[in-house]
Amino acid sequence: MKRLILTLFSLLFILIFGSCAKESLISEVTSPKGTNTINFFLSEQGEPMYTIIHENQMVIDTSTMGFEFKDQESLKSGLELLNITKTVEDEIWEMPWGEQKKVRNHYQGMIVSLKESKTPNRKLNIHFKAYDDGVAFRYEFLEQEGHDSITIMEEHTEFQLTGDHTAWWIPGDWDIYEQLYNTTKVSEIDAISKRDHPNLAATYIPENAVNTPVTMRSDSGLHLSFHEANLTDYSGMTLKVDNEALKLTSDLVHSDRLGYAVKTSLPAVTPWRTIQIADRAGDLIESRLIENLNEPNKLGDISWFSPMKYVGIWWEMHLGLSTWDLEATQAGGMTIDGGDVKHGASTENTKRYIDFAAANGFGGVLVEGWNTGWNYWIGFEDREGVFDFITPYSDYDLGEISEYAKNKGVEIIMHHETSAAPRTYEKQMDAAYKLMQENGMHSVKSGYVGKIIPKGEYHHGQWMVNHYRKALEKAAEYEVAVNAHEPIKPTGLRRHLPNTISAEGLRGQEFNAWATDGGNPPEHLPIVAFTRMLAGPIDFTPGVFEIALLQKPDNQINTTLAQQLALYVVIYSPIQMACDLPENYAGRPALQFIRDVGVDWEQSKVLNGEVGDFVTIAREERKSGNWFVGGITDENAREMTIDFDFLPEGKIFKAALYRDGVDAHYRSNPQALQIEQLEIKKGDSKTIKLAPGGGFAISLIAK
Amino acid sequence: MKRLILTLFSLLFILIFGSCAKESLISEVTSPKGTNTINFFLSEQGEPMYTIIHENQMVIDTSTMGFEFKDQESLKSGLELLNITKTVEDEIWEMPWGEQKKVRNHYQGMIVSLKESKTPNRKLNIHFKAYDDGVAFRYEFLEQEGHDSITIMEEHTEFQLTGDHTAWWIPGDWDIYEQLYNTTKVSEIDAISKRDHPNLAATYIPENAVNTPVTMRSDSGLHLSFHEANLTDYSGMTLKVDNEALKLTSDLVHSDRLGYAVKTSLPAVTPWRTIQIADRAGDLIESRLIENLNEPNKLGDISWFSPMKYVGIWWEMHLGLSTWDLEATQAGGMTIDGGDVKHGASTENTKRYIDFAAANGFGGVLVEGWNTGWNYWIGFEDREGVFDFITPYSDYDLGEISEYAKNKGVEIIMHHETSAAPRTYEKQMDAAYKLMQENGMHSVKSGYVGKIIPKGEYHHGQWMVNHYRKALEKAAEYEVAVNAHEPIKPTGLRRHLPNTISAEGLRGQEFNAWATDGGNPPEHLPIVAFTRMLAGPIDFTPGVFEIALLQKPDNQINTTLAQQLALYVVIYSPIQMACDLPENYAGRPALQFIRDVGVDWEQSKVLNGEVGDFVTIAREERKSGNWFVGGITDENAREMTIDFDFLPEGKIFKAALYRDGVDAHYRSNPQALQIEQLEIKKGDSKTIKLAPGGGFAISLIAK
Repeated sequence: MKRLILTLFSLLFILIFGSCAKESLISEVTSPKGTNTINFFLSEQGEPMYTIIHENQMVIDTSTMGFEFKDQESLKSGLELLNITKTVEDEIWEMPWGEQKKVRNHYQGMIVSLKESKTPNRKLNIHFKAYDDGVAFRYEFLEQEGHDSITIMEEHTEFQLTGDHTAWWIPGDWDIYEQLYNTTKVSEIDAISKRDHPNLAATYIPENAVNTPVTMRSDSGLHLSFHEANLTDYSGMTLKVDNEALKLTSDLVHSDRLGYAVKTSLPAVTPWRTIQIADRAGDLIESRLIENLNEPNKLGDISWFSPMKYVGIWWEMHLGLSTWDLEATQAGGMTIDGGDVKHGASTENTKRYIDFAAANGFGGVLVEGWNTGWNYWIGFEDREGVFDFITPYSDYDLGEISEYAKNKGVEIIMHHETSAAPRTYEKQMDAAYKLMQENGMHSVKSGYVGKIIPKGEYHHGQWMVNHYRKALEKAAEYEVAVNAHEPIKPTGLRRHLPNTISAEGLRGQEFNAWATDGGNPPEHLPIVAFTRMLAGPIDFTPGVFEIALLQKPDNQINTTLAQQLALYVVIYSPIQMACDLPENYAGRPALQFIRDVGVDWEQSKVLNGEVGDFVTIAREERKSGNWFVGGITDENAREMTIDFDFLPEGKIFKAALYRDGVDAHYRSNPQALQIEQLEIKKGDSKTIKLAPGGGFAISLIAK
Repeated sequence: MKRLILTLFSLLFILIFGSCAKESLISEVTSPKGTNTINFFLSEQGEPMYTIIHENQMVIDTSTMGFEFKDQESLKSGLELLNITKTVEDEIWEMPWGEQKKVRNHYQGMIVSLKESKTPNRKLNIHFKAYDDGVAFRYEFLEQEGHDSITIMEEHTEFQLTGDHTAWWIPGDWDIYEQLYNTTKVSEIDAISKRDHPNLAATYIPENAVNTPVTMRSDSGLHLSFHEANLTDYSGMTLKVDNEALKLTSDLVHSDRLGYAVKTSLPAVTPWRTIQIADRAGDLIESRLIENLNEPNKLGDISWFSPMKYVGIWWEMHLGLSTWDLEATQAGGMTIDGGDVKHGASTENTKRYIDFAAANGFGGVLVEGWNTGWNYWIGFEDREGVFDFITPYSDYDLGEISEYAKNKGVEIIMHHETSAAPRTYEKQMDAAYKLMQENGMHSVKSGYVGKIIPKGEYHHGQWMVNHYRKALEKAAEYEVAVNAHEPIKPTGLRRHLPNTISAEGLRGQEFNAWATDGGNPPEHLPIVAFTRMLAGPIDFTPGVFEIALLQKPDNQINTTLAQQLALYVVIYSPIQMACDLPENYAGRPALQFIRDVGVDWEQSKVLNGEVGDFVTIAREERKSGNWFVGGITDENAREMTIDFDFLPEGKIFKAALYRDGVDAHYRSNPQALQIEQLEIKKGDSKTIKLAPGGGFAISLIAK
């Protein structure tokens, strides 16, 4: 009955708000609870069209769909209905690691089969899925006589907004996602103005487009986030912005080398185009829509990888204290005059980090700059064959270190910087992953700094999408998990390939050490939590305690120390770095929180939050049943009351509350911290002050 | 010139305050700065007498000296002056470990040689030393014709007080020092009333006497502490109290078995009788008088022992969670019905503690109950031959554990409970210490619970004094350091034998787990710091975090959690235990303080303090230059302002302040703790609130 009413409602709305083009409703599908409805139409010219209704409110007005090809006519009109299939699915699947253990995949679907009225009568299927937390659709290209593949020049998927929403966006860069988020009305989005960022090794912004996830809030307070799921053998989708019409249109990353966007053999499906829809901002974070739209686990048991906290030889390079290259000419991404700066990845220094990790129960030690090639890794046109993923520098005894780490119960995290020369990397992949397996390493951080070689390819194009995928599949053969930096954006692939453990793909902590624009502002992470984080785990590398960055007088972290702690809960990743120097943790009681905090979760709850302003998340650790809470704010101080109703009945928790000191401020007094030890149970509540740029973290240890 | 004036002064005072007995000043000696003066007299009857003057104030009025022997006439009068020798010494010596590195031994001395006027013309020398922080004297017995030894029945050394001072005292128990301190006027000291304490395995209080150190404060605010130094081949001295005359008289512990107090071959010297004198209570703690009166280091380099923090299988027995004996019949010193209680010292449980120690940078793991004998260790008349110091229980693999500990960089601390059967222990000493050396153990905790076997001997008599010494000397041969429980009181021997690392000899933490009198009251440690602690290092075993003692509903620690932290600085020992269960430290940010706090000091400063009320001590760690501050209070809340003038010029310290939570109280809310992180430099000051039974601890890590 409810379904019927909603259908009537939606019809009604179409009559009222429907675009002027004359069209007829073909069919509609509504989410299990009736929250979201997708309507599909065909125009008189046979153009496929759709609208999205959320709780009686039109959120996407009539929007068309279509494709342009290299060697065929475009496919956007002249289509007629062949058939409609309705589907219902309700499954529960388990994440081997994640924000929660059990995930419910519950939707109602519709497959619309279309056919060209005139020859060559090409067929096109459109798959729709209506979830209570959003909607998704994708295109299916069927066999065609005389064509074993298609070459897509452009995809025209429209998202017609129904208002001039507030948008949190980064430019539609084909090479990198490491920009600050902008907060503007859709009508004011200007990606072009974001070209030529001085701190980006590779950036290309051809259009006034945005990258996904892009999140918006309507004047009525409804939240929308646009992204894609299961990006496989296809190029990344940016969204071109029509500032007047308030319309987003898919704009695929091209290969200038090959002269097209996507080439794929038939039959083929595109990635899912997704819209997460939520009245409450926090529901965007709790949504598992993106993972649900991916294929089930293909790797089976991956117990060889365990979520962990790690330290590493990394931050000291960004502070200019040591270098990646043996000759000590590279630090903080810049060429330096060595002076008394030394190569970071020495056997001795690595052991120092291993000792620190062991003494604090951290599982991993990342070592960057261990292998040859770093002296030509950046600022050179031809970087093919420069990096060697097998050969350590002369001062790095890989065997001795692996043994030393093993005896201390610590695992070395491998590092593979490709300098955006993927062909060189692919040649060595087998050997490189084999070396890791032989030395008991089960995770690798990969990097793709710089412009892609060959010229004309971009990080987010199909060619690189397939490279990133190849690395994951190859790594899995050797029981290696991948944490890619300068990656393709996550699209939920971790469900299918759970060795996809984390990724960068945003402006991370490192920018705070050297960005010439003053580093990440306090609003950065309160935006990231509602944008980039909807795509998947983030290797943000929190945990800077020496926030003033003594070695970098012009830079400083724009958060308080308490917020650095909160990030271990707020920003999800199965691997979390304690990125500061061991000596900077000495004598810091706040270190206890990093020692305690979980990295693998039974469940997660967003207690409060507004995009770009603040967010508080509570997560229950698997096995232990301990809970951890993290809250962060932007440049504004706030007072929050946390209700501990999420705790289990009748259990008392040993709680430690880490919060901003009385006079804490992200600029003037970032390290003022107060830690309070107390006992907390369900029903208790606590009011906490957050300083400007501040935060808080709570550990709740089950007694 | 100054000396002369003082001499005149002292003469003047003698005329005014001198006792009525007619006597003549023989000579006097004054401390280097002229602070303290000792006057020596002979009465008309040839009785040796002395007085002590401090800053023009008589602190000890005319007091006589003398001895009674078994087979000779007593020697207390009829003496005439033979000769007087004046000495001056000013040396600086180094403590291999200690409250400070360099110690200045600066005094002016006088040796008075006396001789009986009539036959047998026995000679007696009295050595006096005047320090600016106190005075000391001892007796020297010279060769006598026809006597190669003397047998002392009693020593009559008087200390005639000049007022009814407030005294902090424990009864003159010949077997144990584990009583609570009493605070009364001297006229009200009643040791007899302290007999038959229900929680003491051996106690014998024959007289209205007190044990030393006993500390007093005069109405004018002057502090005196009476003790002895270099107790060698002699019996311990208690001080008999004359409540009317306000006089203390030495009362030696006797051997009822042998029928005398001391037998010693000639020539011989007695221990030093010492009086520490201070206007400011804190100066008593800063005084190194006791160590200065001992012989120089006889062992030389003892780098095989390093000061350390340690954990151990110990508190869990006191909580009744596990047992010393394999059969699980003994817990918390009481016979129990095993039930699901298990033997504590299993290989598996020991490894758990080793892992915890390694993960927190603690150097040692104490394992009690590892060896056979525990099922007959207490409550049996004949305990000779019961304990075996070589044979582990069947569930304790000593070799495997030693190897496991070694690989984790942790050292096992051996445990030797003798159940007060020293002859059994002496038989096995060589084998026992050899076993330790073979397994890389360099320290032992020894115990002497119960009444001494053979009957008629007491813990504090000459026979046991020599046993404790023998253990130290024997242990040193095998590079073993000794931490004796139920020991003879420390008398500064650690200077001569620096493997004398620590000792119990007071009512320690363990009483809080089961004492039927409600445990140590909040004033206990503010008294201990000015009494027992003047004798030497204390193995108090601080660090209980689960203060409510969930397993012991009738018991609880009478301090706040913050005070437990403060004790690591306030109560000095080169080995400091983190005595609580590993699980009780989980998730506690306060653990960071124990991880950080030093155990070996370059210098120590008492910032404030009043006996029995409160005390704050700051100590600088050797090598690191880090500073740590601890402050504790009694049952009264206080506010203190700490000035950080003791810090070096121009250095900034990363400070963590651990203090009582707003509503903290040692009974109702002992675990409320606040930790504040800040930066501190010389010249800064901080006002801190201490809760009833509370305290605070500050770590200052050099940046």
